[in-house]
Amino acid sequence: MSNLDDILKSRRDTRHFTADSVPDEVIEKALRAGHWAPSVGLTDATKYYIIKSAEVKKAVKNLFLDYNKKAEELTDNPEQKEHYKSLKLEAIEEAPIGLIIAYDRSVLNQFTIGTVGSNEAVKFSSVCAAQNIWLSLTEQGYGMGWVSILNYYQFKKILDLPENIEPLGYFCIGKPATNYDNQPMLQQLHWKQKSEAPDCTEIKNVIGNSVSDFVSKPQSDVENKTDFSRLLQEKIDSKTKPIGALGTLETLGLQLGTVFETLEPKINNPNIVVFAADHGIANHGVSAYPQDVTRQMVTNFLEGGAAINVFCNQHDIKLSIVDSGVNYDFPTNAKLINAKIAKGTQSFLHAPAMSKTELQLCFEKGKIIVETIAKAGSNCIGFGEMGIGNTSTASALMSILTGFPIEECVGKGTGVDDEKLLKKQNLLKSAIENYSGPAELMQQLSYFGGFEIIQMASGMLTAFENKMIILVDGFICSVAFLVASKINPDIYKNTVFCHCSAENAHQKLLNYLQAKPILNLDLRLGEGTGCAIAFPILKSAEAFLNEMASFESAGISRE
Amino acid sequence: MSNLDDILKSRRDTRHFTADSVPDEVIEKALRAGHWAPSVGLTDATKYYIIKSAEVKKAVKNLFLDYNKKAEELTDNPEQKEHYKSLKLEAIEEAPIGLIIAYDRSVLNQFTIGTVGSNEAVKFSSVCAAQNIWLSLTEQGYGMGWVSILNYYQFKKILDLPENIEPLGYFCIGKPATNYDNQPMLQQLHWKQKSEAPDCTEIKNVIGNSVSDFVSKPQSDVENKTDFSRLLQEKIDSKTKPIGALGTLETLGLQLGTVFETLEPKINNPNIVVFAADHGIANHGVSAYPQDVTRQMVTNFLEGGAAINVFCNQHDIKLSIVDSGVNYDFPTNAKLINAKIAKGTQSFLHAPAMSKTELQLCFEKGKIIVETIAKAGSNCIGFGEMGIGNTSTASALMSILTGFPIEECVGKGTGVDDEKLLKKQNLLKSAIENYSGPAELMQQLSYFGGFEIIQMASGMLTAFENKMIILVDGFICSVAFLVASKINPDIYKNTVFCHCSAENAHQKLLNYLQAKPILNLDLRLGEGTGCAIAFPILKSAEAFLNEMASFESAGISRE
Repeated sequence: MSNLDDILKSRRDTRHFTADSVPDEVIEKALRAGHWAPSVGLTDATKYYIIKSAEVKKAVKNLFLDYNKKAEELTDNPEQKEHYKSLKLEAIEEAPIGLIIAYDRSVLNQFTIGTVGSNEAVKFSSVCAAQNIWLSLTEQGYGMGWVSILNYYQFKKILDLPENIEPLGYFCIGKPATNYDNQPMLQQLHWKQKSEAPDCTEIKNVIGNSVSDFVSKPQSDVENKTDFSRLLQEKIDSKTKPIGALGTLETLGLQLGTVFETLEPKINNPNIVVFAADHGIANHGVSAYPQDVTRQMVTNFLEGGAAINVFCNQHDIKLSIVDSGVNYDFPTNAKLINAKIAKGTQSFLHAPAMSKTELQLCFEKGKIIVETIAKAGSNCIGFGEMGIGNTSTASALMSILTGFPIEECVGKGTGVDDEKLLKKQNLLKSAIENYSGPAELMQQLSYFGGFEIIQMASGMLTAFENKMIILVDGFICSVAFLVASKINPDIYKNTVFCHCSAENAHQKLLNYLQAKPILNLDLRLGEGTGCAIAFPILKSAEAFLNEMASFESAGISRE
Repeated sequence: MSNLDDILKSRRDTRHFTADSVPDEVIEKALRAGHWAPSVGLTDATKYYIIKSAEVKKAVKNLFLDYNKKAEELTDNPEQKEHYKSLKLEAIEEAPIGLIIAYDRSVLNQFTIGTVGSNEAVKFSSVCAAQNIWLSLTEQGYGMGWVSILNYYQFKKILDLPENIEPLGYFCIGKPATNYDNQPMLQQLHWKQKSEAPDCTEIKNVIGNSVSDFVSKPQSDVENKTDFSRLLQEKIDSKTKPIGALGTLETLGLQLGTVFETLEPKINNPNIVVFAADHGIANHGVSAYPQDVTRQMVTNFLEGGAAINVFCNQHDIKLSIVDSGVNYDFPTNAKLINAKIAKGTQSFLHAPAMSKTELQLCFEKGKIIVETIAKAGSNCIGFGEMGIGNTSTASALMSILTGFPIEECVGKGTGVDDEKLLKKQNLLKSAIENYSGPAELMQQLSYFGGFEIIQMASGMLTAFENKMIILVDGFICSVAFLVASKINPDIYKNTVFCHCSAENAHQKLLNYLQAKPILNLDLRLGEGTGCAIAFPILKSAEAFLNEMASFESAGISRE
């Protein structure tokens, strides 16, 4: 046979061979034909292995039988299964020659022309060689059958093929015992009908490529917010992950971009500020600890031994400690920010905790502290507090500002027992009943406020004005946020609620604020520890937004 | 030209064409030659697209230019780069005819002969067609050039090719302007020399296949557990905070000390391992993404662009990527751990996903991988996974191993719609109903398992034996834990459940496992991302235990 079309047409995937042997010259000529096949980047990666040994053939046959059993089970229905079982799909033991056509993927260890986009071109070259061999054998009056159902891992193992050699399959070669009536065997046996003609379509035009470029433009001046939000959301959705699969991190990423007004938000010089103050209400025995512990803990902060020090060190967060009104005169200490209003508030059981002037001072001091931090280049500030008795202050403020009955706003604080809890509850109930002032925010704040709580609220308002991300810690800090949001509800946009604490009323307050906290670790320590522990998650949001590949850049199929 | 050898020998990857047009009859004859190529299981999956439009050619050319730029950057040295830039590698705009040869992978949605072991036979059939076309064109006096460096994602997009159509490349066809001196152009231009002869070796015998049994050994006992636990708890309670105020961090600190058997636990060389594999069940359309995305994502991991890369970088966690059984031959890559069992499991709709040998191999490989990591000095390992279709596998395993009805074990995976979810549910229901094997763990695992899931389970058991902390990621990873805990329930002691995912069944499974996860961030990405994101919280536990001051050392009043 010499006409190309005749050869192409009569080439058959052959499974029936005569016992005739195959002369070496026939194989040599066929392999030469294979060698004339294309080889991407001239890699010459195709390798051939010849098998004549009956032992080797038997081992390969066993691999085939194993997977053929599998294939039987995979058929779509029982009739198909029976039909499948009747088919002869290999001639591994009968065919005189076995051939393995393989490719050496180690060629890709060096630069290889034609493999950017897909390195499959290397194996495709070997497939072209297989087809050439098939045609050459056909021309010479021989046949070949391609056995592809094998466990390739075991195949390589039993034949001791090197790790970098990937076989395309096992090929049976011999003198064909039939020509299957000039058609594929599967057609002759009515498995399927080969289509009459090739399936060809002309493509006449291109579809606009709507993949928007995320060229890194510093978006200092954002003109159209909606456009910007859409771009930001598109950037998030272009990352190599299903849409929404990073859950809260995606929400945080969107928030970071929105607050910083850029597609490439970066948290700079994060800073946690712990505001410490004492509370007159503590004199009534509402805490498990003596008031002096406020001072002791401030000293512990300054010496680096408290939990917040450890966590700020861990995450490279600057820690600032503020004396908002501790009942103690600290010696001058460069590490302690002096914003002392007084040595603790008054008890609000019968009288206001602070005067109007003191309240004003709190707003002023809180503002200055945060402005200073913003000027130093920080765009992310966490708020923490320390103050024996301050859960009582916070509970009273929460009840007054939300209208929830005090019973629902009280918790065990740092850990009072049930008896003390009841006492705390009754005390606060009396205090609220004793209040005869107007339902006006500033009045309520000066009556029930705490120095650190009001300074935090003021600090949050200032942070918002300075386009900073605001990290809210636990229960007391959330009450400070409640205060601030009554003054400017917009601060929500900049705020990240770091955790839900074990303090009873915190979940209720978060629900009221419609806030979804990042963590729920039963923390009830304060000090800003929740902010510090949640901080790396905010950094993860920043990181995925800036560092992850997009579907386009990584060449990955979208949904 | 009519002699086959002459045609084979003179076939050239052509990049220089005359302006002569190509008659339709030439193309028709060539496509007929393509149609005579083998077609695995008579699938007839090859599709052709003809391009004559200058606009389309220009758009394709631009894609080429984009990737050619990339290729330039990938060259091994400056001289090679210059040489590369001087090569003409395409004739997209000059060649009168453009041809796309593609295959329709949707043929795999039904049972297809010859695709067990590797479904690549489908694409190989199309490559054979390409080679036939090449030979036919050569015989007719025409030439063809195969352009393989393209962004296939954008290529399909601009040409509006259906999702299930996979092009082999873009082929330029025309009258050749040169025969390159009867040799490949790259040889003529001294890029490389084609080897004189094919590389052929005879294989004379087989190597014994020695898959050893996986035995899990019970761990040796620690003697003075009670005393040690009391000391550890005392240390935690001595820290300057109310007792229990660090909530989950205290539990984690206790666990770290207990697992590492020290009062000063240190996490060393943390390592996250992502096990990737394909799943036969994916052929039934249970995922929102094509199976090829598994391969694409592995490449993304290796190139550092995925979410898990970003988070591991963030926290200085070593990342290891394992090919447990992806349906693709990766080129040798030092960064990729080869533990490939096969190119994906079989669909467990009617038949076992894997053989017993494959199951054993999974246990063996998983063990070796984790042992190697332990030997390298790591005492903390996170488990992650990637595999299109693996939520289906995980759901089936969960249902089988817990007894929950399948409906309660199925979720949306990477985000299928409601209709697909119902389909997925029904499919898995049928698969479970079809199972007639015994209620015996190893049988169930080989029937419903996934290579990466079993390797993870084995890795967890090995991590336990090596006294490592085990970080469990999301739903699929928790199913791997479920498997492991059925073999050795003690592994609970070492395990940290990193997060509760948005996948429906995960909360149910965590409840069943009585596990309290650290995070609840609606993540549903896998890859071990939950482990990486939760990791700093584990570090916070380590830090507070080792670095915080005690009441005594800080001179602070206790309760």
